[in-house]
Amino acid sequence: MDKKPSASQAPSERTRVKRYHWLADYDQDTVKAILDASPLAHVGCVLNGLPFVTPTFLWREGDHVYWHGSAAGRLFKALPDQDICITVSLLDGIVVARSAYNFNCNFRSVMLVGQATLIQDEAVKEEKLRNFVNGLIPGEWERLRPLHPKELKATALACLPITEASCKVRTGPPLDDEEDYSFPSWAGVIPVRYQVLPPEPDPRNLPDVSMPEDILRFRLG
Amino acid sequence: MDKKPSASQAPSERTRVKRYHWLADYDQDTVKAILDASPLAHVGCVLNGLPFVTPTFLWREGDHVYWHGSAAGRLFKALPDQDICITVSLLDGIVVARSAYNFNCNFRSVMLVGQATLIQDEAVKEEKLRNFVNGLIPGEWERLRPLHPKELKATALACLPITEASCKVRTGPPLDDEEDYSFPSWAGVIPVRYQVLPPEPDPRNLPDVSMPEDILRFRLG
Repeated sequence: MDKKPSASQAPSERTRVKRYHWLADYDQDTVKAILDASPLAHVGCVLNGLPFVTPTFLWREGDHVYWHGSAAGRLFKALPDQDICITVSLLDGIVVARSAYNFNCNFRSVMLVGQATLIQDEAVKEEKLRNFVNGLIPGEWERLRPLHPKELKATALACLPITEASCKVRTGPPLDDEEDYSFPSWAGVIPVRYQVLPPEPDPRNLPDVSMPEDILRFRLG
Repeated sequence: MDKKPSASQAPSERTRVKRYHWLADYDQDTVKAILDASPLAHVGCVLNGLPFVTPTFLWREGDHVYWHGSAAGRLFKALPDQDICITVSLLDGIVVARSAYNFNCNFRSVMLVGQATLIQDEAVKEEKLRNFVNGLIPGEWERLRPLHPKELKATALACLPITEASCKVRTGPPLDDEEDYSFPSWAGVIPVRYQVLPPEPDPRNLPDVSMPEDILRFRLG
C-alpha cells in the first residue's frame, strides 16, 4: 500500500481528509457502495451545545440519504437548523503489525456533512419508508399491514444530499516500517465481517403463515 | 416485552433516554458489558461549528474509556475544551414486524457524555496503549517491536470517565399492536452478529515465525 494522495478531490475543505490522507477517497461510487453496505449510521447533531451521536438506520436513494424517527423526538426537531455530520463505518479486520504504532484496522467509512431537511409531504414520506423496508427485504412492504395515517404523521423523515462526502478505506496486510520486517513477530490480518444467521420466526406467527423467500435475501456488510 | 420504565435511574437529565425509554438502562454493568463487546466507537466533537462524528477504537479500564489518535489531529486538539459524546452501537438483528411502524432492530448501544482529558504523562500513555493492544490480543504487546519514544510522542491519548452514561438494549421478537397479531404476515427476527474469520498471515512474515495462539482469542460482539 503506497501512501499516495487520493486521485479524487475533496468536495469541500471540511470534508478533506487530513489524517491518513492516503486512505481518502472522494469518489461518489465508493461513497455509495459503503452507504449501501450498512444500514447502521451515526448522526451527529448539536443539541443544547452537546454533539449528540445517535445510531440510526440510514438508506440511500440516488444522491440522497434518508433516515427516520419519532416526529416528537428532540433531535429531529433540531436537525434542520444546523449543519450535521453522518458517519457510516464498517470494521473489516484487525491489522496485526510488528509494532504497536502500525497496529491498525481494515475498515470502510463514509462521512457526510451538510444541512438536512425534513420531508413533510405525507405521500413522499410513505414512498421513502416503503423504499427503506423493501431495500432491506425485497417486497416486504406489500406484505405488511398498511400504514395508518397517524403512524405516518408520528414518523419524521430526514434527508441529506450526498454532496459533501469523504470516505476512508483500508484493506490488506499491515504496513510496517521497512526496518521492522526483520523483527521476528507474527503479523497479519484477523478479518471480521457481519454474519446473517437463520431467521427466527415469531412464536406468535399464525399457523398457516410461511416465511417469504425474500427474508433470506437480507444482506449486511 | 413490556413497556415498563427502566429500573435504574439516569445519571443526568441530558443522558436520560426519552425515545423508547422502556429500552433504557443506566446500570453500570450493562454499560460496561456493551463497551467491552465492541472496540468500534463513534466520537462526537464540535469543530468549526460542525458536530464531527469520528469512528475510532475505544477501550475501557475500570470506570474510564480511552481512545488514541494522532497528536497532530485537529479533533484531539479540540477535545478538552468541550463536552463530547461517545456512542458504541452493536446491531444484533432485524426485527420483522407485521406493520412497518413496528419494524425495528435488535441492538445494544451506549452513549457517554462528558469532558475528555488528554493524558500527557508518557509512562501512563504507554501503559494504556499496552492495555489496549493486550485487550484485543492477550500478550501481544510483549511480542511487538518496542515503541519508539517519538512514536509515543506522536500519539494522543484521550480519556473519558463513565459517569454520564445511558444505554439502550432491544432483544427478542417483534412487538406488534395487539390487533395486528391476526394479520397474516410472517414476523420474526433476522439475527446478525460479527464473525471473526481465520487469520491471514502477512506474506512478508519471516519463515520461522509462527502465529501465536493468542491471535485466535480475539473476540468481537
